[in-house]
Amino acid sequence: MSPAPDTQTALASLRERLAEIADLGAVEMLLEWDQLVMMPSQGGESRSHQLAALARIAHERATAEEIGGCLAELEGADLDELERDIVRVARRDWERARRVPAELAAEIARASADGQEVWQRARERDDFAMFAPALERNVALARERGECLAEQGQSAYEALLSDYDYGLTVADLRRVLGGLAEQLPALIDDAERHSPERGLAVPVEAQRAAVAAIMARLGVEESSWRVDVSTHPFSTWIGRGDSRITTRYDDGDVESLLSSLHEYGHALYDRQVDSALDRTNLAGGTSMSIHESQSKLWENHVARSAAFAQAMAGELTAGGFQVSAEDLHASLVRVKRSPIRVSADPLTYPLHIVARFELELALIGGELVVAEVPDAWQETMRRLLDVEIDSDAQGCLQDVHWSAGAFGYFPSYALGCLIAAQVWEALEAELGPREEDLREARVEPIQRWLRERVHRYGRRLDTMPLVERATGKPLGIDAFLRYVAPLAGR
Amino acid sequence: MSPAPDTQTALASLRERLAEIADLGAVEMLLEWDQLVMMPSQGGESRSHQLAALARIAHERATAEEIGGCLAELEGADLDELERDIVRVARRDWERARRVPAELAAEIARASADGQEVWQRARERDDFAMFAPALERNVALARERGECLAEQGQSAYEALLSDYDYGLTVADLRRVLGGLAEQLPALIDDAERHSPERGLAVPVEAQRAAVAAIMARLGVEESSWRVDVSTHPFSTWIGRGDSRITTRYDDGDVESLLSSLHEYGHALYDRQVDSALDRTNLAGGTSMSIHESQSKLWENHVARSAAFAQAMAGELTAGGFQVSAEDLHASLVRVKRSPIRVSADPLTYPLHIVARFELELALIGGELVVAEVPDAWQETMRRLLDVEIDSDAQGCLQDVHWSAGAFGYFPSYALGCLIAAQVWEALEAELGPREEDLREARVEPIQRWLRERVHRYGRRLDTMPLVERATGKPLGIDAFLRYVAPLAGR
Repeated sequence: MSPAPDTQTALASLRERLAEIADLGAVEMLLEWDQLVMMPSQGGESRSHQLAALARIAHERATAEEIGGCLAELEGADLDELERDIVRVARRDWERARRVPAELAAEIARASADGQEVWQRARERDDFAMFAPALERNVALARERGECLAEQGQSAYEALLSDYDYGLTVADLRRVLGGLAEQLPALIDDAERHSPERGLAVPVEAQRAAVAAIMARLGVEESSWRVDVSTHPFSTWIGRGDSRITTRYDDGDVESLLSSLHEYGHALYDRQVDSALDRTNLAGGTSMSIHESQSKLWENHVARSAAFAQAMAGELTAGGFQVSAEDLHASLVRVKRSPIRVSADPLTYPLHIVARFELELALIGGELVVAEVPDAWQETMRRLLDVEIDSDAQGCLQDVHWSAGAFGYFPSYALGCLIAAQVWEALEAELGPREEDLREARVEPIQRWLRERVHRYGRRLDTMPLVERATGKPLGIDAFLRYVAPLAGR
Repeated sequence: MSPAPDTQTALASLRERLAEIADLGAVEMLLEWDQLVMMPSQGGESRSHQLAALARIAHERATAEEIGGCLAELEGADLDELERDIVRVARRDWERARRVPAELAAEIARASADGQEVWQRARERDDFAMFAPALERNVALARERGECLAEQGQSAYEALLSDYDYGLTVADLRRVLGGLAEQLPALIDDAERHSPERGLAVPVEAQRAAVAAIMARLGVEESSWRVDVSTHPFSTWIGRGDSRITTRYDDGDVESLLSSLHEYGHALYDRQVDSALDRTNLAGGTSMSIHESQSKLWENHVARSAAFAQAMAGELTAGGFQVSAEDLHASLVRVKRSPIRVSADPLTYPLHIVARFELELALIGGELVVAEVPDAWQETMRRLLDVEIDSDAQGCLQDVHWSAGAFGYFPSYALGCLIAAQVWEALEAELGPREEDLREARVEPIQRWLRERVHRYGRRLDTMPLVERATGKPLGIDAFLRYVAPLAGR
């Protein structure tokens, strides 16, 4: 039996609106990609206007009264499973978008732009006082926004988390991040004793050749991918058949291999969402932490494996830089504590996130005032990582997130590491160890398993239910601890 | 005295709406540029959806009731000169956009997409019958649209002309294109006798080096320009500080130099519009024919000059291809009649346009039926150019325009040649002969003159008034005839 005529009309109208919102989102992605990869530097001011126009129209469409009308008509209607998910997530998105007053959203956008601008200068000059007023404004606005979004019993911070990971609770985070804070320090002490003194320095030309060859072996072909260079590597999905990743090259390291595998993981996730979800509200990754888990899976469990190092060393050698798989692997799993998050190794990295989580939770909760952030940062980094912070530029000014008003984003980086480890264990438990395949850079079985167990759902499952469905267990830290143990020689 | 409060509000609201329409237009340009230059081939379907969403929203904004409200409030208001132009052109655009019913516009868009698709296959198979139904549909829809747009006393075709060249009349076209049909054939006979047997064939690498060097000498620097490669060269203006041109390279010719100068001319026009017009309805070129005149000026009067050939020959030689300025110049002004428009020389080119003008005027007017197009094409080409058409693929199927529903566009190509010659004469009359500067690729005085006399007006002046203002004369063919005479050895 097909649905009643009114239901059909409402569903068709809702889907048409959601398709337009999806198309506008894709256009926005393209503008941002172009800005970071192709745009001449003087085009920035025009681009801001173009992005602002799109954001305004997208917000207008996302909060349209008519969506509410369709949703009311579809309440309790007889729908199939996919339709029910579309309607459920549409209601969630629509209600969240409408809970934030337009003036507040506009003020947040301005504060974010201003904040990033002043942050950049403050970081250059190592001048926290210069940044403090912008940070205060961002904290106050984020708190206000969190209060608008909070559901029964939620704190403002928890409501902000839902921007990135719907359904995640502060209690979840305290449990897993608290566990990491307890377990990792001893492992780090051991690992530093086992790690080589310094990393590899590979000429850019050899890195380029190896990245191109490895990407080709992973199925990156030019009819549906682009691989470019940008200051900060990123991945973007413009639409079916149009995946774009970037990497960067530096003679002093071999980071391009890690970062291209990382971005490949993000891109593969978007590509492997069920095509039936294209241009609905369910396309794309379900959350920041699942997205990050997919990039970390390829970075930590593929690129940093001893087996895959053989394939990569072969390509670097073919590209003119003679290196053994053992030396390459040792360099990629080298552990060394440092004040800087973005260059941290897989073992110390999560503690950088624990620190940020503790601090931003206290900031939004009002227990930490902005003026005390530098001291609190130093104290936290000392406690968690036994690292001394010599300057705010290398400390609490190092990341862009808070300057842009993004609070609640950091945890997804650590959750990504944990989920990646748990997913990888489930994958190997079912497919068997991957060593043999990875030595030859054969990844089709991995791609297929990920599509089936993780990717295809898109936004139909939120973070926690998806982790349970894919791995058969709730999210925990054990798999991650088993992954990092060998780095500590255990 | 500043305007009354209601006037101020209406003007501010109108300008805000026009700015948004301009921003959306820029976004559309970027999507099209990306599609032709960067997009992986499989991204086409998603891109169509994205472009359709933008077109729908842009049409909605351009026809908004609220614009009518602002315009009514501003009727007879006390405005400065720029404001009066903004309001005048806003009324024109708004009324034209609203005269075409949304269903007709949507049907035209579909017919255009379908038409291009079937045209491509029909051209490959040299099968006009396959294309005929799509052409019939396009002609009927264009006629219907022309009838919606026609003002008092205008034919449907003349109304369509206004899409590309507002204010241009069929009588204007008959006068100038008729004059060309009369004068050019004898010149072509003479010129063919003087022309070298074959053109130059320059290796791609030398062309690349020369194009890069010449563009740099013309002020194309990477902070506000991009130069890329695409199948068909084009120019696009994404916004202030973001000009993008493309060229193409073929070992068998030296076309990349001409085409890059041509596209440079388009780009320079957009760049040199008064920045006070940015994000208003007056930014960008005023018409297709003025735009084409700016590209033709750089292609015909700079790139094809004996003086500039010295600069280009120097760069080709530096790029590894030894050539004399004389040989290069002779190759660039070589006249040879052919059935194909896009590769035609400056002397025969306008007659290709005269043929298309005669035929499309008759098609829209109903005097020519689609089934008779192939015969009419052959007869017209024989009469005007003394060229035999062996196949429809090399005849009436060669151009994309009619398949996309673009009728009234072709004339701008010929007008561009005429206007370029007339503008160049005015420029040299004022600045003196350019030979000495062009030998050294010094073009700043040309750029400055063009900015002052042509570019800065944007859409404030329509085609004919702008020609008169810039050159002191109404549009005619004499300057063009003086330009081509030397090609015929006269």
